[in-house]
Amino acid sequence: KRSYTITLLPGDGIGPEVISVAKDVLLLSGSIEGIKYEFHEKLLGGAALDATGVPLPDETLSVAKESDAVLLGAIGGYKWDKNEKHLKPETGLLQLREGLKVFANLRPATVFPQLVDASTLKREVAEGVDLMVIRELTGGIYFGKPRGFGTNENGEETGYNTEIYAAHEIDRIARFAFEVARKRGGKLCSVDKANVLEASMFWRKRVLALAQEYPDIELSHMYVDNAAMQLIRNPKQFDTVVTNNIFGDILSDEASMITGSIGMLPSASLGDSGPGLFEPIHGSAPDIAGQDKANPFATVLSAAMLLRYGLGEEKAADRIEKAVLDTLNRGFRTADIYSPGTKLVGCKQLGEEILKSV
Amino acid sequence: KRSYTITLLPGDGIGPEVISVAKDVLLLSGSIEGIKYEFHEKLLGGAALDATGVPLPDETLSVAKESDAVLLGAIGGYKWDKNEKHLKPETGLLQLREGLKVFANLRPATVFPQLVDASTLKREVAEGVDLMVIRELTGGIYFGKPRGFGTNENGEETGYNTEIYAAHEIDRIARFAFEVARKRGGKLCSVDKANVLEASMFWRKRVLALAQEYPDIELSHMYVDNAAMQLIRNPKQFDTVVTNNIFGDILSDEASMITGSIGMLPSASLGDSGPGLFEPIHGSAPDIAGQDKANPFATVLSAAMLLRYGLGEEKAADRIEKAVLDTLNRGFRTADIYSPGTKLVGCKQLGEEILKSV
Ligand SMILES: CC(C)[C@H](C(=O)O)[C@@H](O)C(=O)O
Ligand SMILES: CC(C)[C@H](C(=O)O)[C@@H](O)C(=O)O
Repeated sequence: KRSYTITLLPGDGIGPEVISVAKDVLLLSGSIEGIKYEFHEKLLGGAALDATGVPLPDETLSVAKESDAVLLGAIGGYKWDKNEKHLKPETGLLQLREGLKVFANLRPATVFPQLVDASTLKREVAEGVDLMVIRELTGGIYFGKPRGFGTNENGEETGYNTEIYAAHEIDRIARFAFEVARKRGGKLCSVDKANVLEASMFWRKRVLALAQEYPDIELSHMYVDNAAMQLIRNPKQFDTVVTNNIFGDILSDEASMITGSIGMLPSASLGDSGPGLFEPIHGSAPDIAGQDKANPFATVLSAAMLLRYGLGEEKAADRIEKAVLDTLNRGFRTADIYSPGTKLVGCKQLGEEILKSV
Repeated sequence: KRSYTITLLPGDGIGPEVISVAKDVLLLSGSIEGIKYEFHEKLLGGAALDATGVPLPDETLSVAKESDAVLLGAIGGYKWDKNEKHLKPETGLLQLREGLKVFANLRPATVFPQLVDASTLKREVAEGVDLMVIRELTGGIYFGKPRGFGTNENGEETGYNTEIYAAHEIDRIARFAFEVARKRGGKLCSVDKANVLEASMFWRKRVLALAQEYPDIELSHMYVDNAAMQLIRNPKQFDTVVTNNIFGDILSDEASMITGSIGMLPSASLGDSGPGLFEPIHGSAPDIAGQDKANPFATVLSAAMLLRYGLGEEKAADRIEKAVLDTLNRGFRTADIYSPGTKLVGCKQLGEEILKSV
């Protein structure tokens, strides 16, 4: 029997509810596919701040590092919004990404046929959208130094950050993206702002140089402002998109919203070695926390990504993804994706329905 | 008779075609409203590169500075895409913005009732969208130093830029935005990434401090990734939006595309004193340049903004805006906004129809 150690980080808000469903789904699918799990539940974000005073306790990071994969719920909430930077839940997440060295963030934006009407885009524009945004996750302006608050030559206060990329950071994410594009539709669009920013000119130069090694991939370049437009005008023109940390933050969320159902979308963050980090793209939704209203599909699909990209357990991943589609086809919906004629259920009951389909 | 000096910068691609229409519309509406114009046509962008070797000749900047307002067509094209940074058409535009000190970029995104079906968003989502993005235009990562190419401590090549805002830069754009919001729906949404970036934390702090002076304005804050989503989910939630240079570049283009007809959208860039810069938001469209296919509406509406925001000539501005609506109502369309049942015309003929409506 294959056996894996999984770190569970329920986090804040609806995190614990959706993680609990995903854990059950992992256990059941695992028992069918001959996979054993050892789960370690640890603190992150606001929950960690309240209990330990820091958003990423050392113990959480060391346990996460030693496990085979990390499954995260969500972090953050109004309660900690006014905290100083080093005491924000978000800082814990950034430290976790940095600590796990997961430089490649995979953000699929898939329109489920059953939910196409949830998109605010016209049916003919949204139908069939299936794109993957690959965001560089451990570099750029998120981590660049110098950063902080200062005084300029006129004695005025300033706030500043540094957008910086070194050659190997661009090369490894670009290589990763070329490989993903090869397994998908063979098209890669690199998004930058090379008409203005030196960091982007350098990005484009490295991507172009690497392209020599991937003659089978159709590479294009697009400015970030145009990409923000094209995602709305015609999202189906995109197959695989690769971009830097901050542009990826913006464009991957924009792409998600095109699907109309961000409660359905998982993500994976991977490094060269070591455990990957898997999490739904939605937030901690403090308004509905503890009310059994959360949509667990995105976390369940994150567990499927964990199996596929983190552990190489393709069959178990397929099983979970099929169970999600089957549950959708049987008409079960949480409030965020409900439409007349379907069956409205809570988080727990949806979890039970998914288990029936596993 | 009131008399103004206007610098015309036709630029590249379709620029000359749309500027020619806007000039005629200014002249006719001016003659009715008792306004006289002296036009100075100057070089910018690729046209300037070809003729003088630089994208913003000194003469263009000095003539522009001494005029009452500047009307720009569009710049750029494949021909100059591979140029080094200081020889790119875009660099000329950035230098012009800097030279004119136009720190506030106004980008209305308006859905014209006649064109609501051009949007890829569902009718009920797009209908009635009328928002204004105010983008800081002469600061942030576009101009921040240090910038360039370097070598890091491991001897590796890097590319880098600096996102930096000083107190007065934030205060003046925020003040500007509060004033615009006051004339519009009384709601201002400030977009930043204050959960990660110090430059954004500082931005938010200054905006919050200024809010004391505008108790009548309903101020909210939104992270840029969420804003990119909300613009698609429900654009009508926005009235006036204010944000930094790079986020504004991305979000104003995203907002434009929501209308489905970027050929209709003007922009204004204003400073504390001196001439404003007015231009359509679309690009130079080299593929259709010289073919009499360009849509001149956006440039004509930019001329209306020039009258309203640049010269304070409200009546002449109203007259032009009404002429545009009237021409739309009479069914005239260029190819980019054509739909069955309307009358397809070229750039020149559309110009003549607008003149009939002036
Ligand atoms: C919470 C925040 C720090 C984070 C980010 O900006 O990376 C989030 O928006 C995301 O995309 O995962
Ligand atoms: C052409 C380019 C430099 C410019 C910008 O990024 O500001 C353009 O995208 C715009 O928004 O006016």
